[in-house]
Amino acid sequence: MKSHTEYLTFHARSRREYSNITSKVESAVAASGVQEGMVLVSAMHITAGVYINDAEDGLIADIDEWLDSLAPYGKDYRHHRTGEDNGDAHLKNLLIGHEVIIPVTGGRLDFGPWQQVYYAEFDGRRDKRVIIKVMGE
Amino acid sequence: MKSHTEYLTFHARSRREYSNITSKVESAVAASGVQEGMVLVSAMHITAGVYINDAEDGLIADIDEWLDSLAPYGKDYRHHRTGEDNGDAHLKNLLIGHEVIIPVTGGRLDFGPWQQVYYAEFDGRRDKRVIIKVMGE
Amino acid sequence: MKSHTEYLTFHARSRREYSNITSKVESAVAASGVQEGMVLVSAMHITAGVYINDAEDGLIADIDEWLDSLAPYGKDYRHHRTGEDNGDAHLKNLLIGHEVIIPVTGGRLDFGPWQQVYYAEFDGRRDKRVIIKVMGE
Repeated sequence: MKSHTEYLTFHARSRREYSNITSKVESAVAASGVQEGMVLVSAMHITAGVYINDAEDGLIADIDEWLDSLAPYGKDYRHHRTGEDNGDAHLKNLLIGHEVIIPVTGGRLDFGPWQQVYYAEFDGRRDKRVIIKVMGE
Repeated sequence: MKSHTEYLTFHARSRREYSNITSKVESAVAASGVQEGMVLVSAMHITAGVYINDAEDGLIADIDEWLDSLAPYGKDYRHHRTGEDNGDAHLKNLLIGHEVIIPVTGGRLDFGPWQQVYYAEFDGRRDKRVIIKVMGE
Repeated sequence: MKSHTEYLTFHARSRREYSNITSKVESAVAASGVQEGMVLVSAMHITAGVYINDAEDGLIADIDEWLDSLAPYGKDYRHHRTGEDNGDAHLKNLLIGHEVIIPVTGGRLDFGPWQQVYYAEFDGRRDKRVIIKVMGE
């Protein structure tokens, strides 16, 4: 069994930001030499997410608005008694998920026609990391 | 390490539909010969989901109503400016998730008493696919 | 490829309860001898979840309140016609997810600074189980 690990780093300029990281995941799979297996892409923080969806700007704005309607920024969360102001970011992380597992077939991401991997930052202006781990043969 | 890949195809007659695919996942695990490992079941589309829950018709109707209350069909999503009318289906996919990973022990799905795998179609009347990938030994 | 499986058992005294199981997952990884791979932590029930977030009591209370606002206990779900009263617990499971996959690097959980694994009980006062499965080399 082969295993290959990479880390991506982010430092978003704004609080919330959505970055297409598909080509970085593809590069990690190519570097791993894995032909058959899976790749895990996982945020290493609890105020950011990783998801798979469409690379369409209108939809990304819809996703951002929807996440904020279900887990609003600026509410008086109990978590804020610690001095933080990012309670919403923790809930957005739980809503959209922090990790995806993608099948690798014939050395490539075995994706349908519109699947793209996104890093979703919910509490930016800090250093953040994502781990990419490929496993297989 | 063994690896085995199958694809399921769907063409739902209605917009939303929920299909129990547990026996198909079990067949793929049997065909793989894997005794110890994991199986990934993942929608290859961004307007469909895969989830694990109960095979109970009332609950399935509850799930459908709940998803539509949190990500309503017919809203004026920005995504619709592309000509699509399925913005809700993208959000439902993010809410319920597009993939599950199931442990395989002794050649079988290592499930609790009520766990069943479902394919959730949110934008039917089109050809759709699900990938099943078994990895292990 | 190595594989190692453990089962945790729970019997919550109240309906909803959140338990930090990070050290149990770490022990399973140590017992597996896996240096490079992944660990799956998955609820074996459809009325409980497993998630990764912060070990902060205020946040845990926020999460509980948030889950109950989006999937309220006490609503008249169709599922209750079967005699159950836990329709909300099924929806909470779908909202937060029933499983996580954690990367293992150098024999340890490859986590960021605040990531902790939680078992979330949504329908307690019954025997419940979680499976931990480590795969790798």
